[in-house]
Amino acid sequence: MNAVDTLGSVGEIESLRRIVRRLPAATAAIVGPGDDGAVLSAPDGRYVVSTDLLIHGPDFRLAWSAPFDLGWKAAASNLADIAAMGATPTGLVVALAAPLDTPVDFLEGIADGLREACAALSPGSGVVGGDLSASDTLTIAVTVFGDLEGDRPVLRSGARVGDVVAVAGDLGCAAAGLKLLFAEAVDSEGIPDRARFEQVESRRRDLLAAQLRPAPPIAAGRVAARSGAHAMLDISDGLLLDASRIADASGVRIDLGTAFLAGDVHRIVGEAPELADSSLDLVLSGGEDHSLLAVFPAGTLPDGFRIVGRVLVGDGVTVDGADPRDARAGWDPFDDWNGATG
Amino acid sequence: MNAVDTLGSVGEIESLRRIVRRLPAATAAIVGPGDDGAVLSAPDGRYVVSTDLLIHGPDFRLAWSAPFDLGWKAAASNLADIAAMGATPTGLVVALAAPLDTPVDFLEGIADGLREACAALSPGSGVVGGDLSASDTLTIAVTVFGDLEGDRPVLRSGARVGDVVAVAGDLGCAAAGLKLLFAEAVDSEGIPDRARFEQVESRRRDLLAAQLRPAPPIAAGRVAARSGAHAMLDISDGLLLDASRIADASGVRIDLGTAFLAGDVHRIVGEAPELADSSLDLVLSGGEDHSLLAVFPAGTLPDGFRIVGRVLVGDGVTVDGADPRDARAGWDPFDDWNGATG
Repeated sequence: MNAVDTLGSVGEIESLRRIVRRLPAATAAIVGPGDDGAVLSAPDGRYVVSTDLLIHGPDFRLAWSAPFDLGWKAAASNLADIAAMGATPTGLVVALAAPLDTPVDFLEGIADGLREACAALSPGSGVVGGDLSASDTLTIAVTVFGDLEGDRPVLRSGARVGDVVAVAGDLGCAAAGLKLLFAEAVDSEGIPDRARFEQVESRRRDLLAAQLRPAPPIAAGRVAARSGAHAMLDISDGLLLDASRIADASGVRIDLGTAFLAGDVHRIVGEAPELADSSLDLVLSGGEDHSLLAVFPAGTLPDGFRIVGRVLVGDGVTVDGADPRDARAGWDPFDDWNGATG
Repeated sequence: MNAVDTLGSVGEIESLRRIVRRLPAATAAIVGPGDDGAVLSAPDGRYVVSTDLLIHGPDFRLAWSAPFDLGWKAAASNLADIAAMGATPTGLVVALAAPLDTPVDFLEGIADGLREACAALSPGSGVVGGDLSASDTLTIAVTVFGDLEGDRPVLRSGARVGDVVAVAGDLGCAAAGLKLLFAEAVDSEGIPDRARFEQVESRRRDLLAAQLRPAPPIAAGRVAARSGAHAMLDISDGLLLDASRIADASGVRIDLGTAFLAGDVHRIVGEAPELADSSLDLVLSGGEDHSLLAVFPAGTLPDGFRIVGRVLVGDGVTVDGADPRDARAGWDPFDDWNGATG
């Protein structure tokens, strides 16, 4: 007897039916899920598009991420890309591929996470379509759309000498959470372990949440655009690496000030004192916070942003005026994942 | 020594660089690839969106599909969803996940197929963004956008009693090709085999091409919309099953006439005489042609469409007025795929 309904046992159509009813509706949807395509409104005659994959192995371990977390993170990381263009997210399409023995309630958990992330981070956004397939590797492919509301898109290339560099959201917390997971939520052979995870979770709630259910400040993207941000992106690969992308695209140097980052360092050390030695590295190089890094004209700093540096003549990124020890130490999605573990 | 550059050996950024330069630009792109998101134009204030996965195993076998074919099919099947809404495809985002040992020139082949399919099937459409990740399972996730050019979207729900039912494109050819592949392009243990495939290919060129590089009539979607089509979809799961979707959504019966399908049957038998016994089944139930099934007011039949049936009072689908032997015999993506084979 098969006690648990799985993707393979109930099939694609019934699984989809159970998932779709849990998904959030999008205010911008003229035609929602159920036809060959959805139709969305684009009031100003343009729309922003971005896409991102979440893949079992390089992007998450099932011992650490509940299905809800996967849906949440898939939505959050994609919504942040729209925010980073200065737009308001409107709709998402979600293509889900999972092994046939995946319980349907696992898929429902992903849908719940998508719904709650949209509601919490970007009210009014919703899922307008998707696809469900069998795959040996659990894969969540999200494409997200956004509305510029009449403003220009904020690219990476607009930073100018004299501008201030600012951040909205966490720095280093997601990477600190991942470091704690690899240090403490593994068994004696270093393999991700659910029981150990549960022991760790109660003591490390904020840092683990930053890794597993990041909450980037989505609305700050429009705020930045309206305030005349010259450049912006979301920090997925670490402050240094992502700042260098703005510097390279804009033909300028970005100098980050560690004095501006003291609060970020303290936040990590407050929850995990043993990370004191690596805390500044985590703040400078840790990825996956999906915070917004924006460049504003001097004298402009909208609510929600705090200064972390300034734009100078030159190229690349400096920290307190000097070369960072390793400006390339960002998040590498191809890190040593082994299909047999986690 | 590593003689072949792979995704793992050259890394994500260099692989992406090599891929992106092979991709087609989109006329509708205001901001193309390279930032957090792309910006597309939506001249009439709306846009159509659809998404689809192509996954190693359920959707293709590497013994049979060259990388070019995978890119081509991913584009073609997605473009058809936009056509089926009555829209012109404008842009695609492509998220690609592949094992680390995948040669970069394999990924370049996928990009070539995407480019050539866009150019051949929907000139002006192009790739506006994407993502590249490591995965144990080769996965191509495409999301596609389209422009309704001021017309209403053509849904599944608009068929009315008295309308004619028409098709643009092949029927059954893709399924006939797949049947030939499973019969002839396998080794003595039934496992997909490249050498056997090459022997088969020269004799079965058209039917195999219909399966591996389908060429749905994308422009016919806008033609149908302009001609006032009441309902439309693309035939991905077989004529019977997809016709039943229009019938169910519209609250009508669709009666298909086998006399209208004689040409489709002859086309299959002409290339593969041994399929004579199953040829009508293939035409009625074979999936993956991605042809357009549309319903028009009587007296309206735009260029490129041919009548296959009519809309009557009732529900479901009949063939020559009678119940089809098995109206559910469509393409099942969860068919017996075994990760160890093919």
